[in-house]
Amino acid sequence: MTTPAPRHPVAVAAILAVGSELLRHDRTDTNSLHITARLEELGIGVAWKAIVGDDRTHLTDAVRFACARADLVVLTGGLGPTDDDLTRDAVAAALGRGMTHDEPTIDAIRARFARRHLPMPDINRRQGLVIEGAVLLPNGNGTAPGQWIEDGDRIVLLLPGPPREMRPMLDAVVRGPLAGRVGRERLFRRSVRIAGRSESHAEEVLQPLYASWARGSVPVAATILAAFGLLELQLTVRHADAALADATLGAAAGSVVAAFGDDAFSSDGATMDVVVGRLLADRGLRVAFAESCTGGLVSARVSDVAGCSAYFERSVIAYSNAAKRELLGVPGEVIDLHGAVSEPVALAMASGIRERSAVDIGVGITGIAGPSGATDDKPLGTVVIAVSGPGAHQRVRTMLFPGDRQQVRTLATQSALDHLRRALLATS
Amino acid sequence: MTTPAPRHPVAVAAILAVGSELLRHDRTDTNSLHITARLEELGIGVAWKAIVGDDRTHLTDAVRFACARADLVVLTGGLGPTDDDLTRDAVAAALGRGMTHDEPTIDAIRARFARRHLPMPDINRRQGLVIEGAVLLPNGNGTAPGQWIEDGDRIVLLLPGPPREMRPMLDAVVRGPLAGRVGRERLFRRSVRIAGRSESHAEEVLQPLYASWARGSVPVAATILAAFGLLELQLTVRHADAALADATLGAAAGSVVAAFGDDAFSSDGATMDVVVGRLLADRGLRVAFAESCTGGLVSARVSDVAGCSAYFERSVIAYSNAAKRELLGVPGEVIDLHGAVSEPVALAMASGIRERSAVDIGVGITGIAGPSGATDDKPLGTVVIAVSGPGAHQRVRTMLFPGDRQQVRTLATQSALDHLRRALLATS
Repeated sequence: MTTPAPRHPVAVAAILAVGSELLRHDRTDTNSLHITARLEELGIGVAWKAIVGDDRTHLTDAVRFACARADLVVLTGGLGPTDDDLTRDAVAAALGRGMTHDEPTIDAIRARFARRHLPMPDINRRQGLVIEGAVLLPNGNGTAPGQWIEDGDRIVLLLPGPPREMRPMLDAVVRGPLAGRVGRERLFRRSVRIAGRSESHAEEVLQPLYASWARGSVPVAATILAAFGLLELQLTVRHADAALADATLGAAAGSVVAAFGDDAFSSDGATMDVVVGRLLADRGLRVAFAESCTGGLVSARVSDVAGCSAYFERSVIAYSNAAKRELLGVPGEVIDLHGAVSEPVALAMASGIRERSAVDIGVGITGIAGPSGATDDKPLGTVVIAVSGPGAHQRVRTMLFPGDRQQVRTLATQSALDHLRRALLATS
Repeated sequence: MTTPAPRHPVAVAAILAVGSELLRHDRTDTNSLHITARLEELGIGVAWKAIVGDDRTHLTDAVRFACARADLVVLTGGLGPTDDDLTRDAVAAALGRGMTHDEPTIDAIRARFARRHLPMPDINRRQGLVIEGAVLLPNGNGTAPGQWIEDGDRIVLLLPGPPREMRPMLDAVVRGPLAGRVGRERLFRRSVRIAGRSESHAEEVLQPLYASWARGSVPVAATILAAFGLLELQLTVRHADAALADATLGAAAGSVVAAFGDDAFSSDGATMDVVVGRLLADRGLRVAFAESCTGGLVSARVSDVAGCSAYFERSVIAYSNAAKRELLGVPGEVIDLHGAVSEPVALAMASGIRERSAVDIGVGITGIAGPSGATDDKPLGTVVIAVSGPGAHQRVRTMLFPGDRQQVRTLATQSALDHLRRALLATS
């Protein structure tokens, strides 16, 4: 595919996700996230995005609106064979262009059906409709080709809706024709993940760093995202020189890690489960969990990491007091004296699972996830986390988490992994 | 708050979510889902929605675009105190109206700060800016009031971005002034959830039902959503008579249940975990799980249901062969002979956890989630699920799931719960 010499670099994009089903109260558009990430890598910012139903007028108007305000308009969806698939028609109308049936495309669709020993339904001819002047983009995973349209300084891109068809087509465009149409600057990204700090406290620590990054010869921009008790600081640099951008981001990430110490648990994109897994594998230590209120969530997170069998081979979920006694050897009188949600019980769970599993580290988690079970001195959200080992080390901490049952369980899971991480860091 | 006599019922809405952070590649707008659900209950359809960054021109243009195409324009976000919070300014510009500082609102914001012993920063005066002719909507959970603006036949609604501020304000509007401005028809919804059928097979079964629902005196519309191996058929009726709509939906749901038999596991919105929990509680049976490849996910799902301690008190995660032998009594020679992922091992896990836990039903799950561990005769995605009990009953099934590690684990979890459900149904 040949593209004319660049006139005006593509810098601003708009994304339109097409399909009435995307307007349902229980559906989110995720295609635009993937498209945003890929465009940003090329230095193209997304100024605006919309979800439009299968309505010819709304869709045509939305394409016109987007074309007036962006260098690149990316549409996904609405390329199917039915009368509801209106993206081709709407773009043609918005740009004032005609459409023709492309017989080689229709032949290819017919061949795709033939491989499954099916005749091509007549309606699929619609998928061979090509907008005047469009370059077709091959679809390896479906029947509808994409279309690349130059309209003055503007590019309009039609991509299919199903992610497995859309993504490879977008990748080809990003590596190919689009790369030749952007400025020399690219966007580079790096994340630092932080545990155990509130967003406002982190902002306070970061203020002087923000200021120095903004003044640097290669400015670094930063945004904070808070989720499930963790913070993610996303650092970005827009520059033409990849090596310089990378070095700048590395230095910025380093200064964040220095400022937050052990609270900064990842600066290479690794999630908490992966970080914990690496620490265990590096130290050659094995872990087992004794879960009560988290009911399996901690073990599920740890075993979500491929290769976890090097350090994880078992856990026990001891929801009831009987299970705590029988499976973990927690003495009944300790439960009677302190209650099931207490530091002595959490410690006994941690040491119990450790000894009975013959592993290096045991983690015990007990708490009140709600909605019932709270008492005056142990409110809903009380969670006790204990780590036993390696060696004679042990630590225990009582936390109070906000929110409903689901949120308390999620925060307790996050916190249990973080406690394990800190115990491992203390193990040289 | 008084509203003028209805002229033209509000039927079509557009939603604008405001904020540059919502255009990030790792953020989705979820406010619009909640807003969509609440508006649909009033019979208002969402034709179009957009996410716009903190840019005065884009935002003003988007408001104009939305106002030209909807009876109701709902904006959320951009009501904060900073110069980046431009929703008020953009709406005022789009409607050609002025703004004034509302002193009682500013006093209320100042009082909110005073309760936390803080002076009100000067920038917060911006949150007291009221668009000419707007009615203010009180905010119980934050500083920015909402605004309700009548513009000819059109309503423009400004809501805050944080869900805990937005939701109560929207609820008040939906119950209050908006309810008086819509037609008599409301939207009523009912879901039937189905396990063990492909979407295309389900569509085939449903075709004659669709046809008869469309012909009925109260037409029922239906859409299918497929996710994680389950199908959700959503039935909707638009009608002025709530009792008639409810009876019609009940009859339609009943005919789906009749057509799918035991594969239809819920027609009242209950999820699989809740359905399984109800069956266990109703029969007075207790369950324990022996999980390998799912690593705790099944137990986590079951214990996500409040009150699960009535039927769930323990599980074992036996990731390694040693754990299967030691914790569940699976004979080493059975593992050696058949492999860890085999029907004899799954059955031994199920009966092992059942006997050792002294519960009524044991469930064993073993499989190859990947990326490694596959063999020629046991490809990646092979999962064996066994149910032992109640009594002498036992069942085992080998499944092959598509996808990566995470997807295989999710599908295996779903399937294990469904197998347990079917075993319980067979128990009268």
